[in-house]
Amino acid sequence: MDVHEAHRVRYGRSALRVTILAHVFGTLAIILLLVWLLHFREGLDLDSDDPNRIFNVHPFLMFFGFIFLAGEAMMAYKTVGAERKVQKYIHMFVHLVAIVLGIVGLHAAFKFHEKRGISNLYSLHSWIGIGTFSLFCLQWLLGMSVFLFPGAPMETRARAAAWHVSGGRALMFMAICTALTGLMEKVGFLGQLRHSEARVINFLGLSILLFGISVDLSVSLARYI
Amino acid sequence: MDVHEAHRVRYGRSALRVTILAHVFGTLAIILLLVWLLHFREGLDLDSDDPNRIFNVHPFLMFFGFIFLAGEAMMAYKTVGAERKVQKYIHMFVHLVAIVLGIVGLHAAFKFHEKRGISNLYSLHSWIGIGTFSLFCLQWLLGMSVFLFPGAPMETRARAAAWHVSGGRALMFMAICTALTGLMEKVGFLGQLRHSEARVINFLGLSILLFGISVDLSVSLARYI
Ligand code: HEM
Ligand code: HEM
Ligand code: HEM
Ligand code: HEM
Repeated sequence: MDVHEAHRVRYGRSALRVTILAHVFGTLAIILLLVWLLHFREGLDLDSDDPNRIFNVHPFLMFFGFIFLAGEAMMAYKTVGAERKVQKYIHMFVHLVAIVLGIVGLHAAFKFHEKRGISNLYSLHSWIGIGTFSLFCLQWLLGMSVFLFPGAPMETRARAAAWHVSGGRALMFMAICTALTGLMEKVGFLGQLRHSEARVINFLGLSILLFGISVDLSVSLARYI
Repeated sequence: MDVHEAHRVRYGRSALRVTILAHVFGTLAIILLLVWLLHFREGLDLDSDDPNRIFNVHPFLMFFGFIFLAGEAMMAYKTVGAERKVQKYIHMFVHLVAIVLGIVGLHAAFKFHEKRGISNLYSLHSWIGIGTFSLFCLQWLLGMSVFLFPGAPMETRARAAAWHVSGGRALMFMAICTALTGLMEKVGFLGQLRHSEARVINFLGLSILLFGISVDLSVSLARYI
């Protein structure tokens, strides 16, 4: 039995199918996001004089950089056909990249607020966004110290795993809620939209939600089988 | 060992603690929702001449009637100290009540749109709302036929359980996303808010999110232990 075969047996066919679905919805969401920001909006540029172009970096990096990569990191135990140790390092490292790109994305939102003279952190979206991001960094640090630094006893690791996995899934859930509230807030700011743009945004939100659900099912179905 | 004792051992202390937390956040959300709708808004009345009073029935029933009761139904295997068979009937029945109250809540949103002459089902919120609600009813019918009608072989039940539990959790997740997008949409419609009202709404959204997360953890921690 080769490595892929072993995975297939371990995780079951349903879990693998939703892992593929996660890639379909994730890719669809990235495409719709780009169509929206480049075709209907002003495009992306962190160093622009146009505050809107600065802002647009925020949704792009928060989805593609942060949420999508975090999802990939969570699914790495299924998608990466390698030893467990290698999978673990990839899981850790892709989460780190997600955090770094997330910081750039957050920076874009704050820079936009500064340019426009809008006060910071007043909205529900910004509250749950900052909360999610902080807990995400905490989860990374805890994961590092429990699962990667040598010395943590097996007993501790096993007990921490239930929280790490359940908590990690809850964080994906929170990140999706943040993205959808952000999308709704932006729609509220933009006011009356062209019919075609409104449709692109609705399908974008739907794809983001379906990405989150399939990542979630990919983790949980495999554990319940 | 009495029934409660047996539950405690079976589900672990962390799972019980988050079950309590779920009740705290759920109750908080209901209180904040009532403060918002009764104190800051126009109050609730399905038969009013004021379209706003009709609309307000929608968020109230969608959270208290639908989401909160569905969460209670999901946690019934932990909170109801009775035989498994009784727990299962309560689980089924509370979900049924949630669905019925959800239908009245949806009716309120449609009635509001009709009174105001607004077209139906154009927003992201309404799309994911209708999708979630339909899948929820489907989950109920499938649960009924697999777990309650006699005749389904044990083999089928065991295989269906992984999907039923993972899918049920995903549906809670979708319902929370629906509620938060609805809240953001309403905020967008209302425009500039008093500072105190904006704060109540933010804490309301946060409590709804934390309710969903604790229900989710209550189910998943118990299974990973
Ligand atoms: C997990 C992903 C996301 C996180 C963690 C996040 C976080 C944040 C934070 C912390 C702010 C506040 C910045 C400030 O106060 O200066 C903000 C602002 C904003 N974000 Fe996001 N965001 C995310 C995704 C999105 C997405 C996908 C959109 C869609 C367009 C979006 C739209 C907005 C808007 C319109 C603002 C400005 C208004 C406000 O303060 O709420 N966000 N975001
Ligand atoms: C230094 C960082 C991290 C390390 C060393 C680490 C380590 C691990 C390990 C060893 C597992 C397997 C647990 C088991 O099944 O026994 C795991 C699974 C998981 N981790 Fe992490 N983790 C890290 C960061 C994160 C972060 C930041 C998140 C998300 C917020 C996360 C979410 C998850 C999820 C959802 C799983 C379940 C995957 C599955 O079962 O398919 N991890 N992690
Ligand atoms: C799971 C809970 C919920 C579901 C399933 C749901 C579903 C729906 C549906 C299907 C509509 C469309 C009615 C039509 O087109 O005539 C709607 C409208 C609306 N809902 Fe909700 N809703 C939920 C919770 C909430 C909450 C908590 C709020 C918060 C205020 C809210 C705010 C709105 C608003 C403002 C509308 C009218 C605008 C629109 O069509 O989107 N909803 N809801
Ligand atoms: C006629 C309706 C239903 C019946 C007969 C039913 C039956 C069951 C049974 C037998 C279990 C235990 C599965 C196991 O652990 O082996 C269960 C668990 C569960 N059900 Fe249902 N169900 C119904 C409707 C629903 C609905 C509508 C939802 C949500 C959308 C739902 C969500 C859940 C969840 C989340 C669990 C896991 C609870 C836990 O492990 O603590 N169920 N259900």
